Amino acid sequence: MTRPKNDTFLRALLKEPTEYTPLWLMRQAGRYLPEYCQTRKRAGNFLNLCKTPSLACEVTLQPLARYDLDAAILFSDILTVPDAMGLGLYFEEGEGPKFERPLREEWAINDLTAPDPNDHLRYVMDAVVEIRRALDNSVPLIGFSGSPYTLACYMVEGGGSSDFRHVKTMLYDRPDLLHRILSVTADTVTAYLNAQIDSGAQAVMIFDTWGGSLSAAAYQEFSLAYMRRIVAGLKKEKDGERVPCIVFTKNGGLWLEDIAAIGCDGVGLDWTIDIGEARRRVGDKVALQGNVDPNVLFAGPDVVAAEAKKVLDSYGTGNTGHVFNLGHGISQFTPPENVSVLVDTVHSYSRLLRKS
Amino acid sequence: MTRPKNDTFLRALLKEPTEYTPLWLMRQAGRYLPEYCQTRKRAGNFLNLCKTPSLACEVTLQPLARYDLDAAILFSDILTVPDAMGLGLYFEEGEGPKFERPLREEWAINDLTAPDPNDHLRYVMDAVVEIRRALDNSVPLIGFSGSPYTLACYMVEGGGSSDFRHVKTMLYDRPDLLHRILSVTADTVTAYLNAQIDSGAQAVMIFDTWGGSLSAAAYQEFSLAYMRRIVAGLKKEKDGERVPCIVFTKNGGLWLEDIAAIGCDGVGLDWTIDIGEARRRVGDKVALQGNVDPNVLFAGPDVVAAEAKKVLDSYGTGNTGHVFNLGHGISQFTPPENVSVLVDTVHSYSRLLRKS
Repeated sequence: MTRPKNDTFLRALLKEPTEYTPLWLMRQAGRYLPEYCQTRKRAGNFLNLCKTPSLACEVTLQPLARYDLDAAILFSDILTVPDAMGLGLYFEEGEGPKFERPLREEWAINDLTAPDPNDHLRYVMDAVVEIRRALDNSVPLIGFSGSPYTLACYMVEGGGSSDFRHVKTMLYDRPDLLHRILSVTADTVTAYLNAQIDSGAQAVMIFDTWGGSLSAAAYQEFSLAYMRRIVAGLKKEKDGERVPCIVFTKNGGLWLEDIAAIGCDGVGLDWTIDIGEARRRVGDKVALQGNVDPNVLFAGPDVVAAEAKKVLDSYGTGNTGHVFNLGHGISQFTPPENVSVLVDTVHSYSRLLRKS
Repeated sequence: MTRPKNDTFLRALLKEPTEYTPLWLMRQAGRYLPEYCQTRKRAGNFLNLCKTPSLACEVTLQPLARYDLDAAILFSDILTVPDAMGLGLYFEEGEGPKFERPLREEWAINDLTAPDPNDHLRYVMDAVVEIRRALDNSVPLIGFSGSPYTLACYMVEGGGSSDFRHVKTMLYDRPDLLHRILSVTADTVTAYLNAQIDSGAQAVMIFDTWGGSLSAAAYQEFSLAYMRRIVAGLKKEKDGERVPCIVFTKNGGLWLEDIAAIGCDGVGLDWTIDIGEARRRVGDKVALQGNVDPNVLFAGPDVVAAEAKKVLDSYGTGNTGHVFNLGHGISQFTPPENVSVLVDTVHSYSRLLRKS
């Protein structure tokens, strides 16, 4: 096994020199693409799309056919993990994800066990294998998982939440129960990501969407500690190649130094922090990924280009350590043509910067 | 006019010594109190409650009758301001606030003018006068407004939003239009807060609920700059007494130094930042207000007390400059008895700390 033909993404993450700044977009296979909507329609529903490897493979590749992206990311959903843990994930049309059996009773929490990802999440591994075959070593494939705390939010709330009342009540009132959930989930996520690596994922990312809703102290204890444990348990190499790991806590800008210290190769940034400031704070330690506000893509092409350049300028000189991305998933309302502008600007302007 | 009998809140804000750490709670007059729900029922709906001074006065005083709080805050809603600007605020049962006429057309934005608060928001001033009379100089009354950017979010979106797509599209695509909205709104808020001060508000607070959804650069340009302008335009004294001003940007922890530099007396903190760290960063410049996670109040009384003490310990020694509060409005699901525990703990433990 060798590195993919375009290994710019991997090189940037490992802080090796690159000719330009690589980019991919969180949720790049998504509803803003008409071809995605067609495949999803054929799948019947979102969950079928996730659980059918050939369809997951199809949508994973769609953005790469349109745009000159430097990485593919496995199409899946973070909630397949609690689903595999027996909570019964379902989606009602027009509503967010829900669980049939939210995790609130002590007996249910005590009964929780880590499923074997090669069994209960076999469809994900099959998708990884199929995507790798289809990519034919053109660009690297990123695997991913939700963070234990983020997954626990959905598991305890039973779906999305605006105030996280139930999970936070547990956190403050019965921290022992939440720690048990987080511990089993961390074991599950570790095995899940390692299975993805075994199946062919060339980098992995942990999405901590809700860690930023915690107090500084609770973040350390209930989110960061479990991500540290996962990172420590990840396979670092596959077939002689490093498998880098990115950790992304949305609204985690205050805790960057702590995140950068858990052993990950890259830290994802949302758009609230200036990437130049982030680099000054932690950039010698890890690569940085981000961080344009996805809403920029609603503006005209000149604005899209200008905002992309601002991020590249702010990151500054030095030809490595930056993976360009949005600060959050791309919106379903994004005009697809603006993504072309973004991709082209990042590639051409970052080449220019390296010459200056 | 003299200071109220209990002026601990004002003294802490002005960094004068206090015998204990004063506290009040954001949204302290709210749905967690059965007596509030009764008055609201009598009012018919939320908007009537805001617009009827005698009822607004009644609910403002309710938490003070139950708890030993160190300040009252005017009962009102931040959206009364855009309502006075002609956008037509309404509430549908079970849904968030909405505007009949969202502000998206260039002609409507050009037509926008600052209303006279003593005319269009007379009911607020009447409530302030009535509350001051009812308080009988026992504790200070806090007036408030939303920040221009936060108000603009609702004005452009036409209500609440999960992605702020419309206001951010305007921000990136037509910043001139958003600046016009913000400019007129800043003038309105300045006049509104000054009218509250004239009517008897003894401190004012600017709630920037959504500034934290902006990029670092956009926050400076579209939120902070307008709050700076408001603070500069506020009356600093009334009847020989300082009228301190608090600025609170939710999720603004990354920008604390910048917020503390706009001329305000106090900075509100949400629970994501450790208050001790915040004090090290800006505490010599301004007072700090906060910052327990409101979800702590769902736990048992021992946890409520322990978490309150953690905040007081983290702020550290020194007998001034801290106003205790939650990091966000109190939840409607809060058990009222836990608020007693919080109030008593803050008062007694902070007295103890001053002796050690």
